[in-house]
Amino acid sequence: MRLSKAYVPTLKEVPADAEVVSHRLLLRGGFVRQLTRGIYTYLPLGLRAVNKVADICREEMNRAGAQEILMPMVQPADLWAETGRWEFYGKELLRFKDRADRDYCLGPTHEEVVTDLVRGEVRSYRQLPINLYQIQTKFRDEIRPRFGLMRGREFVMKDAYSFDRDEAGADASYRAMYDAYCAIFRRLGLEFRPVEADTGSIGGNFSHEFMVLADTGEDTIATCQACEYAANLEKAEAVVPADTCGCGHDCPPASEIPTPGAHTVEELCAFLGVEARVILKTLLFDVDGKPVAALVRGDRELNEIKLKNHLHAQDVKLASPEQVTAWTGAPVGFAGPMGLKAPGIVIVADRELDLDCGWIAGANAGDTHVKNLDLRRDVKVDAYADLRNITEADPCPRCGGAIRLRRGIEVGHVFKLGLKYSKAMNATFLDENGREQVMVMGCYGIGVSRIVASAIEQNHDDDGIKFPPSIAPYEVSLVSLAGKDPEVAQAADDLYEQLVGMGVEVLYDDRDERPGVKFKDADLLGMPMQLVLGGKGLKNGVIEAKDRRTGEKRELKLADFVAEFASWRRTVRQGWGLDIA
Amino acid sequence: MRLSKAYVPTLKEVPADAEVVSHRLLLRGGFVRQLTRGIYTYLPLGLRAVNKVADICREEMNRAGAQEILMPMVQPADLWAETGRWEFYGKELLRFKDRADRDYCLGPTHEEVVTDLVRGEVRSYRQLPINLYQIQTKFRDEIRPRFGLMRGREFVMKDAYSFDRDEAGADASYRAMYDAYCAIFRRLGLEFRPVEADTGSIGGNFSHEFMVLADTGEDTIATCQACEYAANLEKAEAVVPADTCGCGHDCPPASEIPTPGAHTVEELCAFLGVEARVILKTLLFDVDGKPVAALVRGDRELNEIKLKNHLHAQDVKLASPEQVTAWTGAPVGFAGPMGLKAPGIVIVADRELDLDCGWIAGANAGDTHVKNLDLRRDVKVDAYADLRNITEADPCPRCGGAIRLRRGIEVGHVFKLGLKYSKAMNATFLDENGREQVMVMGCYGIGVSRIVASAIEQNHDDDGIKFPPSIAPYEVSLVSLAGKDPEVAQAADDLYEQLVGMGVEVLYDDRDERPGVKFKDADLLGMPMQLVLGGKGLKNGVIEAKDRRTGEKRELKLADFVAEFASWRRTVRQGWGLDIA
Repeated sequence: MRLSKAYVPTLKEVPADAEVVSHRLLLRGGFVRQLTRGIYTYLPLGLRAVNKVADICREEMNRAGAQEILMPMVQPADLWAETGRWEFYGKELLRFKDRADRDYCLGPTHEEVVTDLVRGEVRSYRQLPINLYQIQTKFRDEIRPRFGLMRGREFVMKDAYSFDRDEAGADASYRAMYDAYCAIFRRLGLEFRPVEADTGSIGGNFSHEFMVLADTGEDTIATCQACEYAANLEKAEAVVPADTCGCGHDCPPASEIPTPGAHTVEELCAFLGVEARVILKTLLFDVDGKPVAALVRGDRELNEIKLKNHLHAQDVKLASPEQVTAWTGAPVGFAGPMGLKAPGIVIVADRELDLDCGWIAGANAGDTHVKNLDLRRDVKVDAYADLRNITEADPCPRCGGAIRLRRGIEVGHVFKLGLKYSKAMNATFLDENGREQVMVMGCYGIGVSRIVASAIEQNHDDDGIKFPPSIAPYEVSLVSLAGKDPEVAQAADDLYEQLVGMGVEVLYDDRDERPGVKFKDADLLGMPMQLVLGGKGLKNGVIEAKDRRTGEKRELKLADFVAEFASWRRTVRQGWGLDIA
Repeated sequence: MRLSKAYVPTLKEVPADAEVVSHRLLLRGGFVRQLTRGIYTYLPLGLRAVNKVADICREEMNRAGAQEILMPMVQPADLWAETGRWEFYGKELLRFKDRADRDYCLGPTHEEVVTDLVRGEVRSYRQLPINLYQIQTKFRDEIRPRFGLMRGREFVMKDAYSFDRDEAGADASYRAMYDAYCAIFRRLGLEFRPVEADTGSIGGNFSHEFMVLADTGEDTIATCQACEYAANLEKAEAVVPADTCGCGHDCPPASEIPTPGAHTVEELCAFLGVEARVILKTLLFDVDGKPVAALVRGDRELNEIKLKNHLHAQDVKLASPEQVTAWTGAPVGFAGPMGLKAPGIVIVADRELDLDCGWIAGANAGDTHVKNLDLRRDVKVDAYADLRNITEADPCPRCGGAIRLRRGIEVGHVFKLGLKYSKAMNATFLDENGREQVMVMGCYGIGVSRIVASAIEQNHDDDGIKFPPSIAPYEVSLVSLAGKDPEVAQAADDLYEQLVGMGVEVLYDDRDERPGVKFKDADLLGMPMQLVLGGKGLKNGVIEAKDRRTGEKRELKLADFVAEFASWRRTVRQGWGLDIA
């Protein structure tokens, strides 16, 4: 593509609300434009990048035996009513009525539609397993769309759905998708981790997320330095440590101590001159309308997802100051497990709290705490559970190795759904013995447009994007320094044609611009291989080649261009961990 | 693709509401399934056909210099308000609110969005012309969705939009798209005609429709047997004939005649013993709330589109019986241009009525007509205009040749829009002299999913579909008659692998079914080339080949398969008017 003819409207300045680097660079490089909140138009370069990702997804899904279909974006309410999600999905499901006053929604996901499709057609075990996928535009009415393609309302997704005869079949389908996803992310040239994940509102038996590692990621993942273990922080199990206060549940009786103005753990530690690890932190929650006290050590972070899952709750929110006062009889900052006033309050403690005693906790009275608290002796704890976030000081829950916390961006998610949808929607088949059985399902999503953004979050510098070769809209940026020299212009045109003839996708900067502008734009747009033709090099029969990722330059002899280019290309691709194309 | 592994749920019976042949065959062959009224899921074979069409559109659009983008399906109301279409578009525009109570619609077309995109970026004449296109899912809330993919609510469309500096540039862009469309439909292997068309609610200066010829088409098109002229019946000019009553506007005075019970032209002709061509038919309309009388000869059909365009009207509807009685003072069936009672009624006559006189017309009194009517003498006609449909008895308006009326399906439409959108939305640029100018636009649509249906409407028989090779999901149906014979099964597998290795797309019927079932399915699914392997033929070292279009069979020698297949393939493609792939 000749840049002089391409619609690539680069920008010098970007809107202030573009907070993350991928959003800024996608706008600056003319890849996308916002139409309205969280809704973007993909310009030619942006669309090419999205399609590169989509094509790799497609190839690997086909290889894994999945079949591509295309389901509608507009979905009727009655299907969502069958699974109860019409009621429970929340406001991300954009609902509307058609001209005949019937209820519809814009599809954020397609479990209902695909289950309806299959239950109408598949009647025998001989027709199973089936795995159907699509690459399609989805809509989720996010309350705070932001970060450009990272969290848009309208986005491109690959979603697949498997139907099996039994659990063993469903596990095999899940594994095939897990492997296909690994292949996809490897081929995309991204540093990624599959991690154990919470199943969230999709539900089902178990799931893995695929995370692209990037410092700017919204998710934290715990990875083991010794084994393959990796899990989302929401899910990573915190092992109970062996260290205790040493008295063996034989502390002196609990007694109140005055702690004027010490509302926070930090203030309390400073006031008493103790470490946070001897403090017992009491967090109060409104869980589906009922009061809950969650206890963790003062130096720990409570994990709300773990609390929610432990309680099988729909909705967990921090108690308001008014609720805190009503439930404790004290101002905020002095809650503790002893003597809570809320009738029927449920007390859940992190399981490491059971080992130890001698705690300092709030006394449910202003400016007062309790010392020498022993939960076994002094409090009726309803349950002990894994409630806290894992830390880098914790051991790997699988092998005991060292844990490292990293930031990641969720770009894929595989779920074993089990019977959740097939049972609700009566998707059954007749088995070998003519008995009716419910199909066992899985679902598997990849955020196609989000991957483009996450590739940039992972790979960029101050000058612009560093696209992996498999996502780059073009593999090569060819910069002509012809200026007014028709001979150089002709040599550049010839080289462009030669590369295209070799099957290389080239963005050819043939514009009448200064070299500085062209170099800056080539770095900004981020094609992995840059070729610069003109000046002294051309006179010496060479062309300058730059690897955008490393910045390494080399000269390719024009006399032996095909071989020298092929060799350099191999080097660049290997740097990205990719095979030869 | 092995049919044993493919999701191709064929049906024996189809729903009664599948009225047209393409709808029935697409359901029977397992190409699509309806989710809800006018909304379909594309199953693997259906999606492949849609993608074949999309790919050809893409290649020819790129070749013509257009650039692919992807605009959102969800569009904000404020853009539609700028052009006035938020108010005027009608109920086909599905409107809704998001969670923040802002107004949006589902995009039925993208003039507003693309104009907004370009006006934000293009500032100089040097950046023009631009032609941006997309292949995208559209939504139109049709009041009567029907005929499967022919008139769905959600459908796949290719839409392009050009922006030029001036009229000459816009004409060149229009011509380039016209030529690209001809190339697309030629490559699709469809019999088609570009026809002059009405510009309808999109508006603009002029337009052509691309019609796939099919007896089941909803549109009528007038084509000249001698020259290239072709026009939609809505638009085709009816030339004024030379024949008159002969008296040269010197008829006896008009006088009433009793015509008891003669309400219709047929009844009147029978009662008076005259030909319909001496009758003057008076049709009363409510045009944007005002009364209008339209006059055509008794043997002619009034063309409401022509009437609407002549009056520059928004809404033309036949007067109700109550309106007829109020406006004429008579029951329905006796309206005439003399003595109409409605104040300010506008009388428009087809222009051929000005030549002649001696008409018989309604007398605006029950059971009474008027004879010897002369419009010049007896009536105040507000305007003479081309109001009637062209017929096969009319000459070509361009060359005088013979006109033939054919049925067609509209699958493409190119519009020269002029300034309609760019002016309303202030899409301007600075010209060579630094003066602000309004961009001149064109828009160009192709119904991608509708093309698949129209290809079937044009090409089918009682047994099923006859896909053109360029639209067929697979080029070859390979039918194995192996039964329980492992040697034949192996030979079929080998041939399948050989064909795939040759780059041929093959649907391989390896199922454990009877030959009759396989033959029927191959005919139903409609791949253009059928290969049948097994039985006597295989023993003699040949494979039977059938051209699905013609039914012609030939034997290909397995010993020289590559050459024999290539030669046969050439023959089949040539039969479709296609070059060698």
